[in-house]
Amino acid sequence: MIHINENFLKLRAGYLFPEIGRRVRAFKQENPKAKVISMGIGDVTQPLAPAVVEAMHRAVDEMGRPETFKGYDDGGVGYEFLRRAIVENDYQARGAEIDLDEVFVSDGAKPDTGNMQEIFGTDNVVAVADPVYPVYVDTNVMAGRTGQANERGQYEGVVYMPATAENDFVPDPPGESVDMIYLCFPNNPTGSVATREQLAKWVAYARERQAVILYDAAYEAFISDPEIPHSIYEVDGAKEVAIEFRSFSKTAGFTGVRCAFSVVPKALKAYKKDGLAVDVNAIWKRRHCTKFNGVSYISQMGAAAVYSPTGKKQIAETIGTYMANATLIRETLTKLGYQVYGGVNAPYIWLKTPEGVGSWDFFDRLLNEAHVVGTPGVGFGPAGEGYFRLTAFGTADNVREALDRLAAL
Amino acid sequence: MIHINENFLKLRAGYLFPEIGRRVRAFKQENPKAKVISMGIGDVTQPLAPAVVEAMHRAVDEMGRPETFKGYDDGGVGYEFLRRAIVENDYQARGAEIDLDEVFVSDGAKPDTGNMQEIFGTDNVVAVADPVYPVYVDTNVMAGRTGQANERGQYEGVVYMPATAENDFVPDPPGESVDMIYLCFPNNPTGSVATREQLAKWVAYARERQAVILYDAAYEAFISDPEIPHSIYEVDGAKEVAIEFRSFSKTAGFTGVRCAFSVVPKALKAYKKDGLAVDVNAIWKRRHCTKFNGVSYISQMGAAAVYSPTGKKQIAETIGTYMANATLIRETLTKLGYQVYGGVNAPYIWLKTPEGVGSWDFFDRLLNEAHVVGTPGVGFGPAGEGYFRLTAFGTADNVREALDRLAAL
Repeated sequence: MIHINENFLKLRAGYLFPEIGRRVRAFKQENPKAKVISMGIGDVTQPLAPAVVEAMHRAVDEMGRPETFKGYDDGGVGYEFLRRAIVENDYQARGAEIDLDEVFVSDGAKPDTGNMQEIFGTDNVVAVADPVYPVYVDTNVMAGRTGQANERGQYEGVVYMPATAENDFVPDPPGESVDMIYLCFPNNPTGSVATREQLAKWVAYARERQAVILYDAAYEAFISDPEIPHSIYEVDGAKEVAIEFRSFSKTAGFTGVRCAFSVVPKALKAYKKDGLAVDVNAIWKRRHCTKFNGVSYISQMGAAAVYSPTGKKQIAETIGTYMANATLIRETLTKLGYQVYGGVNAPYIWLKTPEGVGSWDFFDRLLNEAHVVGTPGVGFGPAGEGYFRLTAFGTADNVREALDRLAAL
Repeated sequence: MIHINENFLKLRAGYLFPEIGRRVRAFKQENPKAKVISMGIGDVTQPLAPAVVEAMHRAVDEMGRPETFKGYDDGGVGYEFLRRAIVENDYQARGAEIDLDEVFVSDGAKPDTGNMQEIFGTDNVVAVADPVYPVYVDTNVMAGRTGQANERGQYEGVVYMPATAENDFVPDPPGESVDMIYLCFPNNPTGSVATREQLAKWVAYARERQAVILYDAAYEAFISDPEIPHSIYEVDGAKEVAIEFRSFSKTAGFTGVRCAFSVVPKALKAYKKDGLAVDVNAIWKRRHCTKFNGVSYISQMGAAAVYSPTGKKQIAETIGTYMANATLIRETLTKLGYQVYGGVNAPYIWLKTPEGVGSWDFFDRLLNEAHVVGTPGVGFGPAGEGYFRLTAFGTADNVREALDRLAAL
């Protein structure tokens, strides 16, 4: 008799975005003429850069001619032209030495952050921030690395590290020993960034405890402060303890194109129960090449164009547009008396709801009175209660209009 | 201390294709002027159909304009335009009723066949054919559903079902109870197909034992015999016991474009240890949407064009080219006195090596004397010893030349 993986039954219903959708639909039904502006979803709105569009047209043409047609991307780890551009631009240019065979091109940071846990034992203890991007936790629940959820939606066996205004939304390493540490900077949802010193503290902790840091840097392109590291490998010793996730989704508007990459350094070891060290890069390569078959050549050609001089300029302009939104949101809300975090080196604004109003009550008020949709902070974890996430990914006009409505409240 | 998933350490080294590569490189080094013709790799060579190229250009343009830009494919299950084309053309047209929400668009049948096992318990017993596409087995090894490999490369706990000339390379259901049954028709590597009656026997077995059939139909486009089912859902009752995998890779030359789909019927149940039935479609949806973020819009637009009247015609021409190769290979080798299987409704020719020559010896003879590369059957499992796989995916000129050389041997 076929048995289900009962770990999947521990998963709490995907509550946050379906519930937002439900409330928005109900509102629209009752108010069919209202123009609802969404600042809730973490999806980009600006079109692809012309350099990317041009490169993808070229790739499509190549695929249509016998002499330039491309079949399987050999091994599925990504074309060398793309891995080379990544190594040079994302790492060498920032003083981090990463080898070509430490880069694995993939179809998304969500798949990568979700899949990476699979190569580690199910007895490892997982640590995540609270609030947190739910994929880190849910994929560990599926793998059986947790117990049941409590009434606050937190799973038994996971170490939750509160990210609060008191620690600038950058938790310190815990007192206890944990094995798999998910860090995300610039952070989703709080918009916080980690300084070099803060990251160094984490690297030191991981080295001491022989833990692995799973570092999600999907939003690094939004960093403008030259002092803030874009990569955890800018910290000495990180290659022995950290895996890094990157994506073209937010950097270059690739949410519908699908291209990302992971860096798994050859210096990184994990251990058998008998203490013997195992090369994590080789194990991940085996996993990646067995369960994945490479990214579309067209998407890879588009991604490579992001690193061309023209591409870089165009990408920077789009990011500039989003960050102008972020600045406007921050400044307007601050003027209106809100306590605002994030939105400086990140596309997310993390807003303290006024007078202790709950996240969902604030959501309802914004929707009903300003016809603006954001994301209740509590949806990312209990420490998010009393907070609210706004994203800078809208168009400038919509952002201005949404802020005017908030001001009128 | 971070522990590795020790199941990965049970995996035998990926021996087959690396070893072929090693021998071919060594030969080329010693014979730099020889023109080596590969009939070994299962990758397509013909360019994309013009209708697909045109649709992808259109999609790239849409991604470059703000008013038509596409971000995340909502939920990641695939655009409705593509799922609708699939349901109508691949299923309704063949008398199988599949709902839109039973289709999950993905980036490949290899990922899908590799990932699907994850939603089932690790205590299920896996059955595969011998010889077999290695991904089915390796992904179950990674999940911990097997013991160690023996010296023949077979894993403890897996039920291997020999596919031999005696059973026309279509094994019967085993006497014992198994829970997860991988079937692949048209078959890789043997090129065999299953009749409706043979599939019905499997469906009856699965219904009786409450097992799940994981049906890989990636090569269905090569079926020309009207009596051979393209889908397992052409068999009554299959929706309650079978998941089907399809791909545009071989159908439409998408190995470098990446688009495929799985069908997970809502009627399919798996069971908790206490016997309670669980809806597999809902569990897979949760898995798919948590660990995957949709297929490139450009690839999905290309895939939809495969179903347009022009697209269908162009695709049929390409498949016709490959199948003309297959026919030529079959007929020439038969004339030369070889015992040949497959190559009628499948792009693979499964050749009995002459006079009991071992698979690898035959490989070496072909490489050294005819400068032709094929795949040793034993690389797919012990029952493949004494067999050899040739693929029909080359160009017509290369196939002709390779056959001339074989004739001259």
